[in-house]
Amino acid sequence: MLIVGEKLNSTIPSVKEAIKTRNAAFLQDLARRQAAGGASFLDLNTAQGNNELDDMEWAVKILQEAVDVPLCIDSTEPAVIEAGLKAHRGKAMLNSISMETDRLSGMLPLISEYGCAVVALTMNDSGIPKTAEERIKIAGQLVDELKRANVDLEQVYIDPLVLPLAVNSENGVIFFRCLDEIKKSYKVKTISGLSNVSHDLPKRKLINRNFLTICMVNGMDAAIMDPTDRKLTSTVTATNLLLNKDRFARNYLKAFRAEALED
Amino acid sequence: MLIVGEKLNSTIPSVKEAIKTRNAAFLQDLARRQAAGGASFLDLNTAQGNNELDDMEWAVKILQEAVDVPLCIDSTEPAVIEAGLKAHRGKAMLNSISMETDRLSGMLPLISEYGCAVVALTMNDSGIPKTAEERIKIAGQLVDELKRANVDLEQVYIDPLVLPLAVNSENGVIFFRCLDEIKKSYKVKTISGLSNVSHDLPKRKLINRNFLTICMVNGMDAAIMDPTDRKLTSTVTATNLLLNKDRFARNYLKAFRAEALED
Repeated sequence: MLIVGEKLNSTIPSVKEAIKTRNAAFLQDLARRQAAGGASFLDLNTAQGNNELDDMEWAVKILQEAVDVPLCIDSTEPAVIEAGLKAHRGKAMLNSISMETDRLSGMLPLISEYGCAVVALTMNDSGIPKTAEERIKIAGQLVDELKRANVDLEQVYIDPLVLPLAVNSENGVIFFRCLDEIKKSYKVKTISGLSNVSHDLPKRKLINRNFLTICMVNGMDAAIMDPTDRKLTSTVTATNLLLNKDRFARNYLKAFRAEALED
Repeated sequence: MLIVGEKLNSTIPSVKEAIKTRNAAFLQDLARRQAAGGASFLDLNTAQGNNELDDMEWAVKILQEAVDVPLCIDSTEPAVIEAGLKAHRGKAMLNSISMETDRLSGMLPLISEYGCAVVALTMNDSGIPKTAEERIKIAGQLVDELKRANVDLEQVYIDPLVLPLAVNSENGVIFFRCLDEIKKSYKVKTISGLSNVSHDLPKRKLINRNFLTICMVNGMDAAIMDPTDRKLTSTVTATNLLLNKDRFARNYLKAFRAEALED
């Protein structure tokens, strides 16, 4: 499973501050630590800084000086996404498109132009549907739009958008069903963040870790998560082993020898 | 999911010693702590004491003085099982029968006579089959034998016997397939111990915990485990919440308030 590091996000106060004060060293260190934790992409969001577009351009540049791991350019603004993709060397990821009319029309041309991977959210102008059926239907619409724009479906990560268990105890199983059916129906990859499921509940990391394991059982291909959380990365390593994705336990034993496993 | 406490087992040196020296207080305390941790049955094995049969009779008696939770009488000897069931007040569990000829013929009559629940292992005189197909077939043979002996299938827990990942990286997925198919094919319950899967690997508890989560996703009804391990019981609580088996997160929040959740 592919890990997208979530920590270069300006909604985190220390990151916001570092962006505002152009503290490159702080952000570069955070990038390096996430790469060391196993991230294959690093999400980058500058919405809360000084000027989202300028901040994105600057941050892409200083981060690519520090790490080889590509970035996941995260914004709701097509212009910011474009600035980020333009500044980025190598293949980036775009986070995100959805079936919201403006977002889709603004972002879709950028995917083909920059040949990036893309996170596609199962929501439209009415918001996030409550049922699995409706989210699976939107996934189909997204796949149709992406095909029409000649996007390689190998590069598409559908996020069925988990809603909090505190709102409805069915929200977990609804999400797991989406993961399973979207993958089977449309032959695309799936992705999710981990924290929304535990919103408003105590001991959130306990829920998030077990959520990740169950998502992996349901074939999830990528997670937007904290790769510096060793309990979480240990969960990924152990679950890969249990799901027969680690022949001869090579990665598990390698992580153990590197003292990266925490139980 | 039903928890069968595993700690009253004479293969554990301190338990063996307590059985040998008739240290009732030690065993009663272990029983109480497992009950407090959420066990619905307490496994009791006296194979390593002084005299297995006498030790079983004594231990059943002193344990039932201490806790209301019923016992799971664990032995390979039909005579010891019978002594345990005879001494036991209320409905016990029998651990275990299998398709091994002598074990089956010796144990089968006891199940009907004492009306106990039963753990049935998918092995025969040739040992534990390596493939899922063969284990599922043995599960079918066990179900046939139990039906013929008029055993209520509601009381039957099939254990598909997980083999170590260190021997074969496929052993996890083989086991998960068994859990799923045995349940669907024969309408019986499923059960497993947690530790065999991680045999010969480091950080075993990390593997065992994630194994438990995946087993629960595959509908496992019971686990033979350590109910005093708070990380493990927290995994059960969180996984039940995620799988929509805890409406309004009642049990999760109750465990949190009791300071029983560990992340």
